[in-house]
Amino acid sequence: MTDFAATKAMFNLPQGVVYLDGNSLGPLPRAAGDRVSDMMVQEWGQMLITGWNKAGWMAMPTGLGDRIGRLIGAEPGSIVTGDTLSIKVYQAVASALELCPDRKVVLSDNGNFPSDLYMVDGLLRSLGPEYELRVVAPEDVADNVTEDVAVLMLTEVDYRSGRIHDMKALTELAHANGTVTVWDLAHSAGAIPVNLAACNADFAVGCTYKYLNGGPGAPAFIYVAPRLTEQVRPALSGWLGHESPFAFDLDYRAGNGIERMRVGTPPILQMVALSTAMDIWDMADMQDVRTKSIELTELFIKRVEAACPDLQLASPRDPAQRGSQVSFRFADGYAAMQALIAHGVIGDFRAPDIMRFGFTPLYIDEQDVENAVEILADIMQNRLWDTPEFKVRQRVT
Amino acid sequence: MTDFAATKAMFNLPQGVVYLDGNSLGPLPRAAGDRVSDMMVQEWGQMLITGWNKAGWMAMPTGLGDRIGRLIGAEPGSIVTGDTLSIKVYQAVASALELCPDRKVVLSDNGNFPSDLYMVDGLLRSLGPEYELRVVAPEDVADNVTEDVAVLMLTEVDYRSGRIHDMKALTELAHANGTVTVWDLAHSAGAIPVNLAACNADFAVGCTYKYLNGGPGAPAFIYVAPRLTEQVRPALSGWLGHESPFAFDLDYRAGNGIERMRVGTPPILQMVALSTAMDIWDMADMQDVRTKSIELTELFIKRVEAACPDLQLASPRDPAQRGSQVSFRFADGYAAMQALIAHGVIGDFRAPDIMRFGFTPLYIDEQDVENAVEILADIMQNRLWDTPEFKVRQRVT
Repeated sequence: MTDFAATKAMFNLPQGVVYLDGNSLGPLPRAAGDRVSDMMVQEWGQMLITGWNKAGWMAMPTGLGDRIGRLIGAEPGSIVTGDTLSIKVYQAVASALELCPDRKVVLSDNGNFPSDLYMVDGLLRSLGPEYELRVVAPEDVADNVTEDVAVLMLTEVDYRSGRIHDMKALTELAHANGTVTVWDLAHSAGAIPVNLAACNADFAVGCTYKYLNGGPGAPAFIYVAPRLTEQVRPALSGWLGHESPFAFDLDYRAGNGIERMRVGTPPILQMVALSTAMDIWDMADMQDVRTKSIELTELFIKRVEAACPDLQLASPRDPAQRGSQVSFRFADGYAAMQALIAHGVIGDFRAPDIMRFGFTPLYIDEQDVENAVEILADIMQNRLWDTPEFKVRQRVT
Repeated sequence: MTDFAATKAMFNLPQGVVYLDGNSLGPLPRAAGDRVSDMMVQEWGQMLITGWNKAGWMAMPTGLGDRIGRLIGAEPGSIVTGDTLSIKVYQAVASALELCPDRKVVLSDNGNFPSDLYMVDGLLRSLGPEYELRVVAPEDVADNVTEDVAVLMLTEVDYRSGRIHDMKALTELAHANGTVTVWDLAHSAGAIPVNLAACNADFAVGCTYKYLNGGPGAPAFIYVAPRLTEQVRPALSGWLGHESPFAFDLDYRAGNGIERMRVGTPPILQMVALSTAMDIWDMADMQDVRTKSIELTELFIKRVEAACPDLQLASPRDPAQRGSQVSFRFADGYAAMQALIAHGVIGDFRAPDIMRFGFTPLYIDEQDVENAVEILADIMQNRLWDTPEFKVRQRVT
C-alpha cells in the first residue's frame, strides 16, 4: 500500500494553502532545491565538461524515461525525455505520418490541448496542401477513423473536463483501419493508470511538470512502441539522436532504439529536479493513486454540489470516465477563482467559464478537500469576488 | 575597461585545474547554485503556479534574449531563448525557406557543426525530393551562392578550427542573390564581437552553455531581423508563440514580434542559472573580451610551438581570422588529451586528430596559459600518455 502521509511529507507546501492546481504545475519536492544546487556545485562546478560522462548526465534522458515508463505501462527502453511537449508532439506526428505515406489526414478532436493542434497544423502546412488536420468533437472520433486517416492524435484526458478517451478501444479501431496512434498523456501520467504496452499504443508523449512534479519547464517525454522503433526515421534528427554523436560525421544515421528520438543537449538542471520528483513516485503504486484520487474527486463533487448550487459539474459524473481533476462551469468563474486563490485555495480557470481543480493523492488528502470546499462555499454563498473589499485588494496586490 | 580579475572571481573554478574547455561547457558562476535553489524554494515552492506571472517566469525568454542581444549586436526585442540549438536551427531554416518559396536549396559547408546539417537534412527530406542540402568546403561557400539557393546556413566560427566566416560580406552576397541567411553563433556569442544588425543578418541562432556559461543543457536562442519578423510564419508553431496563448483558441495565430518564435513551456531552472551567468556578462565589454582573447591565444600558440614541435597548428594563424579557440593536430591527440586532462588541463578532442583549447577571458588569464603550456610540454616531451603508469591510472579511474 502506498503511504500517502509519507509522500505528502516529501513535498514543500506553503502554509495555509490548499493546492488544487498540481495538474498545471506540481509543487516542489522538499529535496529538490538542495539536490539541484548540489549537482550544480559538485558536478557542474567540479567536474565541468567531464560531468557528461562522470556524473551520468548523458544517460539521464533514457534513465528518467524508464522511471516514467513504470507509471504508464511502457516497456523498458521505450521512452526518452527531453525538449517540450509541443516539440515531442511534432516529432511523434511527423514520424507517424512517415509510416503511412499514402494517407494525408491527421484526425484529432476539439477537446485536445490547442498547442497539439497548432504544432500539427504548422507541420501539415509545411508538408503541403494535400495534408489535412481534421478536428471533430470528442464523441465523434470513433466514427471518423476512416480509411484516409494516417494518424489519430488524441489527448487521453481532456485538459478542461477531465473526460477520458478509451485508449485501448480507439487504438484497436485505429489499427484495424491502418491508422497510427499518437497519445498525449499530459493529464494522464501520474494521474491515472495507463498501460501503453497493453493498449498496443504506437507513439505517446507527455510532460513532467504537472502530476509528475518535475518543476516549471521540466522536460517532456516521448514513447515509441518497441515494435516500431527501428522503422522510425525521427523527424527532428539532432546529433544526440545520431548513432554515433561524437564521431561528428556529416551524414545522419538514426541511433539505436529510442535514443534516436533525442535531439539536442538535455537540460540537466531540470532533469535533476525531475529525478528528485521521481524518487517520490518510486514510493507510489498507480492503482493506489487512482483509488485515492477517485475518493478525493467524489468527495469534492459531493460537497461542492451540496454547498454551491450555482456551480455546474463540467466533468463526467462517472469516476471511471474522469481523470484526476474536476471542473465546474460558472459564468463568473474567472472572478470567483481569483477570490478563491486570494483565500488560499489554488485552482485555475480555463476560458470561457471553467473552474478547474486537480486532485493529487501524493500530497492532497481528505482534510484538504474539506477545507477547500468550506472556503469555496463561503466565497460562492457571499459572492466575495463581488465585494468592494476584494476588488480593492485585487488592485493593490 | 572590463575588470577581468573581478569577473574571474565570480566563477567557481576547481583548485588545480586550468579549464580550456569553456567553448564546450562554461564553468559554474559562483552565485548560480544558490540562485537556482532560492528560486526553487521561494518561487516554485511558495508561489506555485502563480510564479509564472508573479515571479516573472513567463517573461524570462525575451528578457534573457535582450541581454544576450547586447553581446551580439541585436536590436532589442529581436531574440527569444528556449529549446535547444538543434531545434532553433530547424525553426530558423524552415521559416527562412518559406520566405523563398520558389527555391529549394539550402547551402552550407562541411565545417558546420554536424547537428545543423542533420536537422536540415531531416527537414528537407520531409519537405520532398525537390529540396536539396548542398554542402561545400568552407572556402567555396561564396562561389556557390547561386540563384537556386534559398537559404545560406553557416556557423560563423568553425567548431574545430576556429576559422571565422565573414558574416557581413557573405550576408551581403546572399542578399544580392535573393538568398536568406541563417547564422549559427554557437562559437561566436561571448567569444567574438558580433553585430547582427550592422551585418543585416536575417536569422541567427546560438546556444548559451558554451562561452555564455549558462550550464549543462542551458536554453538556445533565436534571432529574427525586425524587418522580417512580421512576415515569418514560425515553423514549430507552439502555444507560447500564439498571439493569445491563454485564450486556448483552436486556430493558431502567430504572436507579436519575436514572441512568435517561442514554442512550449520554458525551462525556468535553466533560465535562472543563465540569468546568473548574464549578470557576469553585464560586467564585460565585448571589445575588451576580444582584445584579451587574442592576447591569450597568441601567447598560447607562441609557447606551444616553441615547446611542442609535434603539434601542428590547425587554426588560422592570423588572429583576425580566428575565434576564441586554438586547435592543434596530433596523430595521438586523443590519448595525449586524456593525459593532459588527468594532469589538470582540460581541453577536448575532436575526431580525427584535433586537440582543441578554448580561451575565455572572463575567467582565464595569462598565468593559466603559462601553466597549461608547461604541463602540455611535459606531457608531449615525455610522451606521458604512453607510459605504463598512465595506462594503469586510466584503467582504474
